[in-house]
Amino acid sequence: MTAPYTLILLRHGQSEWNQSNQFTGWVDVRLTDLGKSEAQRGGELLKESGLHPDVLYTSVLSRAIQTANIALDAADRLWIPVKRSWRLNERHYGALQGKDKAQTLEEFGNDQFMLWRRSFDVPPPPLSDDSEYSQVNDPRYVGIDGEIPRTESLKLVIDRLLPYWESDIAEDLRAGKTVLVTAHGNSLRALVKHLDKISDEDIAELNIPTGIPLVYKLDENLEPIGAGEYLDPEAAAAGAAAVASQGKK
Amino acid sequence: MTAPYTLILLRHGQSEWNQSNQFTGWVDVRLTDLGKSEAQRGGELLKESGLHPDVLYTSVLSRAIQTANIALDAADRLWIPVKRSWRLNERHYGALQGKDKAQTLEEFGNDQFMLWRRSFDVPPPPLSDDSEYSQVNDPRYVGIDGEIPRTESLKLVIDRLLPYWESDIAEDLRAGKTVLVTAHGNSLRALVKHLDKISDEDIAELNIPTGIPLVYKLDENLEPIGAGEYLDPEAAAAGAAAVASQGKK
Repeated sequence: MTAPYTLILLRHGQSEWNQSNQFTGWVDVRLTDLGKSEAQRGGELLKESGLHPDVLYTSVLSRAIQTANIALDAADRLWIPVKRSWRLNERHYGALQGKDKAQTLEEFGNDQFMLWRRSFDVPPPPLSDDSEYSQVNDPRYVGIDGEIPRTESLKLVIDRLLPYWESDIAEDLRAGKTVLVTAHGNSLRALVKHLDKISDEDIAELNIPTGIPLVYKLDENLEPIGAGEYLDPEAAAAGAAAVASQGKK
Repeated sequence: MTAPYTLILLRHGQSEWNQSNQFTGWVDVRLTDLGKSEAQRGGELLKESGLHPDVLYTSVLSRAIQTANIALDAADRLWIPVKRSWRLNERHYGALQGKDKAQTLEEFGNDQFMLWRRSFDVPPPPLSDDSEYSQVNDPRYVGIDGEIPRTESLKLVIDRLLPYWESDIAEDLRAGKTVLVTAHGNSLRALVKHLDKISDEDIAELNIPTGIPLVYKLDENLEPIGAGEYLDPEAAAAGAAAVASQGKK
């Protein structure tokens, strides 16, 4: 196969904790009915686009897997091979996991809140292993115990994601496969930062909307040929604005 | 890991063509709402049993994949690795695919009907590649084009399934993994025939109910330690009786 290669990114739709306005991170909450509708719409957009994913990558978090399952059913591609990795997980939100976003904003003030949400390399305080929101005893991480984070900045997400991009996703792209990655706000921001060579400062302004496939054409060096394109640009712009205002009352 | 090993078989629930009483085979119909409820119940039985599948095997047919996705969501194991193969597909029903079962029974008589449905090695007439129910242009079989059947007997199903059992499923079992196989009436009958060493004659009487996990404990030679056990034996007996009477008016 020859370039251009096709990479499709899809952020999961509304989860139970998006709805209740809590920091989620690695806590394994499910999609709401709205989130399921978003996934359905994402799959329909894929089908209408004529793009045919050959392989699916997901995190090991249920909300991304549910999104992929629903979208691929709508796109009539349920049968493609699937690869999952914790390296595609959402950013670990440390001690903020489980906390109400508006309450956190009020308690710590806007500067600290935005630092935790959008700074490149300042992680929130670490989550205690005793917390009900800790993943240290979660069976899905058996075998990677030594690498389970207690908190992460976006920088740390990039550090654990890029090795997997190189070892697996990039390999499938180079083999000519159309790759669908179904994941999370921050793991997808990490990937887009890498692809589009966005600076550590500018990445703060990038918001990826939920449920709308973002399509990249890549050359033989896996560099983007032009900008990534959302399959529904108007809805994507509205969705990105909604993400930017999250946490505000 | 040491034996006993655990193998769980799950037959998909009602599909659109089960409901409309048509022969399905390799035609890729979806689950009905009843079929989805069966999958949900199967997943809840798994969860209650305390069994934890470590890896999922499915066919490449949507009704088996939907069943697995729903059941694993209910069992809180959506995140386990997934392997799919056409070798776990339903028996190819040849020229009967798409036909009404009751009408076929009436047209060809009970003897011919039961021969096609239950004989070990007599396949139905082959399906024409021109048929709307043919799979010769289905993208999921790209790469195995030379092996796409036009009709199959149970014997032929065994011939294409056992190499995959040996190369993949048995390997995962020997590694100590609890394996869940979500598949079809005839691919699961083929597997049970192999495990329980059922004769070519006696297999005709074996009916596997839908949506109820069937659990085998296997020794180091992957031979069953005792009989396979359904997680809901009463429902399984009723379900098997219903399968046996399929096609009857």
